[in-house]
Amino acid sequence: MSVHYSDPKLKVFALSSNRPLAKKIADEVGVELGDVSVTKFSDGEIRINIEKSIRGDHVYLIQSTSEPANDNLMEVLIMIDALRLASAKTINIVIPYYGYARQDRKARSREPITAKLVANMLTNAGADRILALDLHAAQIQGFFDIPVDHLLGASLLANYFLENGFDEKAPVVVSPDHGGVSRARKLAQFLKAPLAIIDKRRPRANVAEVMNIIGNVEGQECIIIDDLIDTAGTITLVAKALKTAGAKTIYACCTHPVLSGPAIDRIQESPIEKLIVTDSIYLPEEKRIDKIEQISVASLMANAIKRIHEDKSVSPLFEHTYTGNVE
Amino acid sequence: MSVHYSDPKLKVFALSSNRPLAKKIADEVGVELGDVSVTKFSDGEIRINIEKSIRGDHVYLIQSTSEPANDNLMEVLIMIDALRLASAKTINIVIPYYGYARQDRKARSREPITAKLVANMLTNAGADRILALDLHAAQIQGFFDIPVDHLLGASLLANYFLENGFDEKAPVVVSPDHGGVSRARKLAQFLKAPLAIIDKRRPRANVAEVMNIIGNVEGQECIIIDDLIDTAGTITLVAKALKTAGAKTIYACCTHPVLSGPAIDRIQESPIEKLIVTDSIYLPEEKRIDKIEQISVASLMANAIKRIHEDKSVSPLFEHTYTGNVE
Amino acid sequence: MSVHYSDPKLKVFALSSNRPLAKKIADEVGVELGDVSVTKFSDGEIRINIEKSIRGDHVYLIQSTSEPANDNLMEVLIMIDALRLASAKTINIVIPYYGYARQDRKARSREPITAKLVANMLTNAGADRILALDLHAAQIQGFFDIPVDHLLGASLLANYFLENGFDEKAPVVVSPDHGGVSRARKLAQFLKAPLAIIDKRRPRANVAEVMNIIGNVEGQECIIIDDLIDTAGTITLVAKALKTAGAKTIYACCTHPVLSGPAIDRIQESPIEKLIVTDSIYLPEEKRIDKIEQISVASLMANAIKRIHEDKSVSPLFEHTYTGNVE
Amino acid sequence: MSVHYSDPKLKVFALSSNRPLAKKIADEVGVELGDVSVTKFSDGEIRINIEKSIRGDHVYLIQSTSEPANDNLMEVLIMIDALRLASAKTINIVIPYYGYARQDRKARSREPITAKLVANMLTNAGADRILALDLHAAQIQGFFDIPVDHLLGASLLANYFLENGFDEKAPVVVSPDHGGVSRARKLAQFLKAPLAIIDKRRPRANVAEVMNIIGNVEGQECIIIDDLIDTAGTITLVAKALKTAGAKTIYACCTHPVLSGPAIDRIQESPIEKLIVTDSIYLPEEKRIDKIEQISVASLMANAIKRIHEDKSVSPLFEHTYTGNVE
Amino acid sequence: MSVHYSDPKLKVFALSSNRPLAKKIADEVGVELGDVSVTKFSDGEIRINIEKSIRGDHVYLIQSTSEPANDNLMEVLIMIDALRLASAKTINIVIPYYGYARQDRKARSREPITAKLVANMLTNAGADRILALDLHAAQIQGFFDIPVDHLLGASLLANYFLENGFDEKAPVVVSPDHGGVSRARKLAQFLKAPLAIIDKRRPRANVAEVMNIIGNVEGQECIIIDDLIDTAGTITLVAKALKTAGAKTIYACCTHPVLSGPAIDRIQESPIEKLIVTDSIYLPEEKRIDKIEQISVASLMANAIKRIHEDKSVSPLFEHTYTGNVE
Amino acid sequence: MSVHYSDPKLKVFALSSNRPLAKKIADEVGVELGDVSVTKFSDGEIRINIEKSIRGDHVYLIQSTSEPANDNLMEVLIMIDALRLASAKTINIVIPYYGYARQDRKARSREPITAKLVANMLTNAGADRILALDLHAAQIQGFFDIPVDHLLGASLLANYFLENGFDEKAPVVVSPDHGGVSRARKLAQFLKAPLAIIDKRRPRANVAEVMNIIGNVEGQECIIIDDLIDTAGTITLVAKALKTAGAKTIYACCTHPVLSGPAIDRIQESPIEKLIVTDSIYLPEEKRIDKIEQISVASLMANAIKRIHEDKSVSPLFEHTYTGNVE
Repeated sequence: MSVHYSDPKLKVFALSSNRPLAKKIADEVGVELGDVSVTKFSDGEIRINIEKSIRGDHVYLIQSTSEPANDNLMEVLIMIDALRLASAKTINIVIPYYGYARQDRKARSREPITAKLVANMLTNAGADRILALDLHAAQIQGFFDIPVDHLLGASLLANYFLENGFDEKAPVVVSPDHGGVSRARKLAQFLKAPLAIIDKRRPRANVAEVMNIIGNVEGQECIIIDDLIDTAGTITLVAKALKTAGAKTIYACCTHPVLSGPAIDRIQESPIEKLIVTDSIYLPEEKRIDKIEQISVASLMANAIKRIHEDKSVSPLFEHTYTGNVE
Repeated sequence: MSVHYSDPKLKVFALSSNRPLAKKIADEVGVELGDVSVTKFSDGEIRINIEKSIRGDHVYLIQSTSEPANDNLMEVLIMIDALRLASAKTINIVIPYYGYARQDRKARSREPITAKLVANMLTNAGADRILALDLHAAQIQGFFDIPVDHLLGASLLANYFLENGFDEKAPVVVSPDHGGVSRARKLAQFLKAPLAIIDKRRPRANVAEVMNIIGNVEGQECIIIDDLIDTAGTITLVAKALKTAGAKTIYACCTHPVLSGPAIDRIQESPIEKLIVTDSIYLPEEKRIDKIEQISVASLMANAIKRIHEDKSVSPLFEHTYTGNVE
Repeated sequence: MSVHYSDPKLKVFALSSNRPLAKKIADEVGVELGDVSVTKFSDGEIRINIEKSIRGDHVYLIQSTSEPANDNLMEVLIMIDALRLASAKTINIVIPYYGYARQDRKARSREPITAKLVANMLTNAGADRILALDLHAAQIQGFFDIPVDHLLGASLLANYFLENGFDEKAPVVVSPDHGGVSRARKLAQFLKAPLAIIDKRRPRANVAEVMNIIGNVEGQECIIIDDLIDTAGTITLVAKALKTAGAKTIYACCTHPVLSGPAIDRIQESPIEKLIVTDSIYLPEEKRIDKIEQISVASLMANAIKRIHEDKSVSPLFEHTYTGNVE
Repeated sequence: MSVHYSDPKLKVFALSSNRPLAKKIADEVGVELGDVSVTKFSDGEIRINIEKSIRGDHVYLIQSTSEPANDNLMEVLIMIDALRLASAKTINIVIPYYGYARQDRKARSREPITAKLVANMLTNAGADRILALDLHAAQIQGFFDIPVDHLLGASLLANYFLENGFDEKAPVVVSPDHGGVSRARKLAQFLKAPLAIIDKRRPRANVAEVMNIIGNVEGQECIIIDDLIDTAGTITLVAKALKTAGAKTIYACCTHPVLSGPAIDRIQESPIEKLIVTDSIYLPEEKRIDKIEQISVASLMANAIKRIHEDKSVSPLFEHTYTGNVE
Repeated sequence: MSVHYSDPKLKVFALSSNRPLAKKIADEVGVELGDVSVTKFSDGEIRINIEKSIRGDHVYLIQSTSEPANDNLMEVLIMIDALRLASAKTINIVIPYYGYARQDRKARSREPITAKLVANMLTNAGADRILALDLHAAQIQGFFDIPVDHLLGASLLANYFLENGFDEKAPVVVSPDHGGVSRARKLAQFLKAPLAIIDKRRPRANVAEVMNIIGNVEGQECIIIDDLIDTAGTITLVAKALKTAGAKTIYACCTHPVLSGPAIDRIQESPIEKLIVTDSIYLPEEKRIDKIEQISVASLMANAIKRIHEDKSVSPLFEHTYTGNVE
Repeated sequence: MSVHYSDPKLKVFALSSNRPLAKKIADEVGVELGDVSVTKFSDGEIRINIEKSIRGDHVYLIQSTSEPANDNLMEVLIMIDALRLASAKTINIVIPYYGYARQDRKARSREPITAKLVANMLTNAGADRILALDLHAAQIQGFFDIPVDHLLGASLLANYFLENGFDEKAPVVVSPDHGGVSRARKLAQFLKAPLAIIDKRRPRANVAEVMNIIGNVEGQECIIIDDLIDTAGTITLVAKALKTAGAKTIYACCTHPVLSGPAIDRIQESPIEKLIVTDSIYLPEEKRIDKIEQISVASLMANAIKRIHEDKSVSPLFEHTYTGNVE
């Protein structure tokens, strides 16, 4: 890939969590990944050294705070500290997947709001801007006092389904729970499809939970959508419930393939035909089963980086389904 | 009402937005409202003077930032400044209705996040703690770096319906849009009722929006729930759609009766049988129509103030339907 | 007016309080006013949207926090928040009239210092610089930790009197109270005129206040000067006292025409011949009586904006009487 | 002096600038001065050690930042640091004389606002509260974001003149310049006396400055008042001008006797009969000439410390002439 | 163990890194460990829930940020966030071993100062005080703006050697490198022993490093001391060099037994007779070889916690060799 | 000296402590020293005025905080305030000698950490970057949250000895105490020399301290090195002890010649042959005795300023012995 970006002050760095994506982004931007060594000492402490001067540079640092979340988070923080002390001009954190996002409010007494804590840590360490993708709740933008550019993955996922002819299939978009209805609705709008919502509830005390399907799915192509899939427990139960309710084919999609613990096995055994995910989180070989199809956010994020660096608006990137051709 | 609370260091103050509620809260706590003069100069500037020393006191300041939002907000900020400079020990802001809460994320390019701005303003002015009720999004808790005690109104509203025999009527709880499904579900759980969701959407370009009802409402008693009702546009359209779809009777409820502009007329003319609201926002005489029934949050908030002052947990106040008897 | 300023990174925006002045300033700078929509919702909350990208721009935002002070203040704060989140390079607040300036110290126990609170709010929201005009007390500059460029209106007012031949008339400059002597003295210096001071005091308890005139005014042309005239109570009493004491003609001037409540009537009925004010505050039609003459600060402020943007000193703008020709 | 104050958590400490006053204050409060060693190394660096534990104590630290201003200021800052790290509960800075107060605004281009800088330094070091006396400008209160209790010396000075029968003598109170008129007026009110103001100005270019006396002083007892007297240049010129204008006797008073450089000689040779000052600044033996009479602020400040510690209002201490009997 | 501490507001909590030590400390203080659940989700994110109200409590939170450093650090930060939001009165972080302490300065260009970053993270999360033990550099105290109580392990280690009769054996205390001489000297003082220092250096380019022993060790009992032993590379090489140089017996000691990677094997095979360590870091079964003897810091730290809570000085705990009897 | 530096935005200013060095640095950079007036009023307060606009400039401000430390420190702080308010683009503080550096930790109970306090004061006043030389402890870098470029004087001193043929003389480098061993070792490495360390200790209670020399010095050329020499007490005692132990010739060197009190006399009378110091601190005429030789840091610091301004790394300046030829 050629190194063709004109401004040498734009630097792109990657840490450990997702170097293949970072490499693709750098390629799309037209720069080489910056030279940084990240070492883990024998006692687990991380040591970072930036190999070349970045004084006065605008640095874009790519890191998903996916598993191992704490190590990856600490890497970003230490790197921000190093960049600040080494006199970077601006420090822009590109977080394809923002870990701990689900702890975004005190749901029970005496709970932490870890998503806010992480926002404070990034800001206090010295970040000047965040470029994020599909935050678990849009309000997390407000956890930061620095500018946040928030990209939406729905435009990418919608594009996938449109390119694969789903607008002809009159699918139903399914929200697997009450919290994800707005996200499902956005995809439904792109696909001009109706909605269904799953309301999992215990009918009476001491009785098993039941999956109530609100909306009509019988004989339909269903597309379940969530922002992330972790252990895949809920989504596979939802898929079964849809099947039982007479759904024709069942697709699923999400932006962030966390896929921890039993996730892969559950998906493999579920009635889900295909699961569409992005590469916001690196998928190791053993998780790349046939049912899972990955689409890349590299072009979207690279475009965002260039637009930010060139003082252009980033919203054109996700107002329509994303095909790579923007303005 | 007797002044019976034992600790003279606990002071309750009210500003202009909702003195009747503040009076009730103070009565329930067992103290008199603190002596403060709030004047508006002829040029519109606000002047506040605290009449008696509050050095070393724990002050609870009650103010909804309802209409006129900017004046009410400015009153709180000036009062916090005065309390801080006058050496209050702690400054606890009791906000039955948190204005600007709907601007809680950048929905479009270059929008402010005013709910966060307000949180910063309260914190920077010197607030030590927030006691809020039914914030538009639970994530607004994370906009603050100071402790937020977040009370839920659903327990009060549910109690109303239970006391009025609705558990026998097998009602359907209706969310008027995709964003309020979680709130509707909480009420549904208290009432052991099923859910329906309204998905308002334009079927094709250049065609009027249609109210799709997801879920079954035919022949049912419906309870529409929202956190606030502003101009009552959506909720009255939803009520009509439910009627058209064969709903039997239509009730509506919300915590915060903003009821601005054409709201009262719209409700009056709508098929809504009864609208249950709280007194988090003061309802002037002209808005107190027969269809609207107000239940008071005074006991709930007074209990919260006492529990905070006495270092007890506040969660018991809203985990179950609230009847005033806690522990 | 032609748009001729060379650097497209300089943007001038106006909010609601004084658009005619803002328009004049933009014209003088040689740019168009930026495109921003400011809406007030039916419940009184303000919604701001910046219509075009301002990433990387140097924004000058013009707003007087005059009546309605709280709405106008909140507009600025929300706009600063929006500009910051939209990645403006610098945010420069141009405040022709700084409201709440009179609350600049604790004059009585437990009073707030609202002028400082407002300074903190502007700074915390994200302002990088303040451009102000005739602050009620020069010390308000020190309420900010960001740079404040403080323009003085005396040079404009002095110019008016000089152009109207007052240096020939040997006028007396009158301070209407003990707090304004320094300001009066500055005008007196420009006009090479003597000073008189009014000392309003109650001679004994239970006796009406008396206007003692310190200095000689008999048979003289008097020019009363203040930084602002609010309800015009004091200044019209002073005018009467001067008349009684044998003053020949009485002029008055101030930078900021607050003119609230009974001000216009009082001035109309007073022995004041003419009141010279600036357009730092917008005067609605009904306040534009013949006795009031308005001179514009637009050229002064536009020059200041250009000098700041071009890294030049602003002090040459007010060290001498201002005629628009600077260096 | 007996050590009789009941709460052992109240500690009073003194640094180097004015130990005699600090001793008196501690006596009046009823405690011993805390044990602290302040050493100056041979290279001029200051070393402070607190000799006994002050964990959890409420510390009142007495220090005027008088000459040598920088050493005295640095002493306070280092002591605050030591107190904070040693876990004092609250750190209350008692500053009888606040140095650098005259640099309270940008009077010329590119000047610092050192009075604000000092306020920031005290706050950032860890001060929780300031107890000050006759700040050069009342607005300096607003330079702090922590509570400031601001005592006024006029009540003490007025008391001196009243006790010495001046209310019978019908004196004129004289402000030595335009900036001090408000202060002169306050004393004039206590003494029920008229005002005169000195307007020093150059009549034409290249002509010597002239002392214009606004108001009538002929045949009167004059009391010149200022907040501080530094080199005594202005005040002795004013005294001469008053004499020339036929004043009978001339007294002068100020809160803060800076009296640097030629001050003592000038006063000695001037027509000033007597100069009344407080002990806010320590007067070394060589400055204690017969013409200067010192009255103590110890009782006033000790009362303030006790009232603050006991959560009482301090304003009763200076609303009337101070005689030591408060409530 | 009896729960006997009198003040119920003192709470001691432990996280995952060293529960046995925390249990001992709580026992020594006389309280039960607080009830907190720390869970690791399947994707590696940590979830913390405090089970009982701690409103208004003084919480002491015990956690070494030893391996896995990032997980342990993140646990503390999330717990601080939870404690703060749950309205703890003070949050005191007890860190027997402070990880990342070796990254305490920019030794090479563009290095981070991670020890400072961690200090900032703890402070910003909401810690009110740090209680630490043998920080790698004493200057790390200055990385915090909150009070740090810094305990020294030398008094414990010295006590061990004195109790085992080493004062009779006239040992030599050896610093394994130039950076640890001050620490070695402190132990030497307690034992009244002479010092030796190892200067590891390459005599010429391309020649192996040589261990120069500065000082006399021949025929002596040697005690090597360091603050921590990580991979044990240096200390075992030093031991060999001492042996070669004729040392009689070789002991080693350190406060923090990091002992990562090949450490245990190296120690086992080295001429070190015995290695004395504390339990500041938990030693799993497989590291508890016969050569290693552990002494507990529980009594020292429990005493410190009690003294802090009771507003007593902590320095008596380490000015002399620590035997548990203080004052 | 010609003014040849190309970028007019780079400004170099000097305050009072060391104008000769500042002049040399400005010459080496190729600019004139900026125009600033620093006055001390008769009462000791400092007044600073910057004579020409520095809006938008990158200012490098040179000041050692040497004796009088407090005056010199206050000068820097006031100047930073003035620069910030006058809208400098960046404020870079060049501190050849950082006073108060020895107070860098709590060595005894209740001590301040003044080196940290000073760091906070510089940062809070508005400094953007620090350029320092041989800080007493490298960890002081971590006291700042802004970037610190830390130059090392060892490369200059080493160069002196190499140029004077010391590599041929096989000298021993001596650390005068346990705290300075690392510094001595760095010089020893440059000179390929062995080390000796002085361990000053009291053999028994009530017995005089003895200078134990660890390492071999008999018949050797000795070079004692320290970062600073203050009263010269220790270093001259060390010199005598070395002489007694048979050292051949004794040289001494340090970066910072504080040389207060009896220092010059002690050095004069000591067996020290020659003392090499830099001009980081200005040496007045009376201290320039023959035994003292001064080498200049001007070229080193000027190079650092230029490299910082041009976004180049500064580490090449001290990784090798400094001869002025870099890259």
